[in-house]
Amino acid sequence: MKRRSLEHLDCSMARALDVVGEWWTLMIVRDVFLGMRRFDVICDDLGISRNILTDRLQTLIAHDVLEKRPTEDGHHEYHLTAKGMGLSDVVLALWRWGEEWESGPEGPTLRLEHACGHEPRSHLVCRECGDPATVDTTRIRRNRRRID
Amino acid sequence: MKRRSLEHLDCSMARALDVVGEWWTLMIVRDVFLGMRRFDVICDDLGISRNILTDRLQTLIAHDVLEKRPTEDGHHEYHLTAKGMGLSDVVLALWRWGEEWESGPEGPTLRLEHACGHEPRSHLVCRECGDPATVDTTRIRRNRRRID
Repeated sequence: MKRRSLEHLDCSMARALDVVGEWWTLMIVRDVFLGMRRFDVICDDLGISRNILTDRLQTLIAHDVLEKRPTEDGHHEYHLTAKGMGLSDVVLALWRWGEEWESGPEGPTLRLEHACGHEPRSHLVCRECGDPATVDTTRIRRNRRRID
Repeated sequence: MKRRSLEHLDCSMARALDVVGEWWTLMIVRDVFLGMRRFDVICDDLGISRNILTDRLQTLIAHDVLEKRPTEDGHHEYHLTAKGMGLSDVVLALWRWGEEWESGPEGPTLRLEHACGHEPRSHLVCRECGDPATVDTTRIRRNRRRID
């Protein structure tokens, strides 16, 4: 089941998809976000084979998305790295979209809740002026080589 | 190359990944966002085989993410539906993450630019109080069946 890589596309999003563009990968990241840190718990939650989970966890560790930490009782737990934490926007955006458009006749079984009790929504804003960045107000520019 | 579906997981995000959790799918959505609407243009941009592109476009149309519209010159163009436009948060969040963590030694070749000239960043905020919703302030609740 080796899929063709997107490596030939010189694009940050394509490279991102090369890391996380696989079903199980993002579901595993979601589970760790939700506080599931042990192999057996994730395996049970996703109903995934142990071989596939082992393989995906190794990929996520190799790409510095997860790290494996020993626990006091001699087991291991998986934790998100800073790079992995950076995927929260992707996970939450995808989750929201799924809730809105793919939640099935009975509505979503799980929902996100902000500390104030209401549902959050993702929002792209300009880092500088704080205004919403929509498809209409955002354009794509070819970048110069970075100096910093 | 049929992959196992995530259908057995009763989760909106899993259903979302069943639709878009494939490399080419999101890259095609990105291209249409960027204004590429014709088969040959997308095919050329992604360096993808015509068979795969035809297959993925059919999937996206079947899931009501894209629609095919005839043009005056007797060709067809692909346009995003409302559901497809809803993927902008996912595309932009993934793009931003790729730029930050996977952009390679020379930095990203393309960058997003807000109308004011600065780079946007995605941001999850509470729909009600407007405060940022982070992994720390957001929790997952089991939902009751929706009444509305």
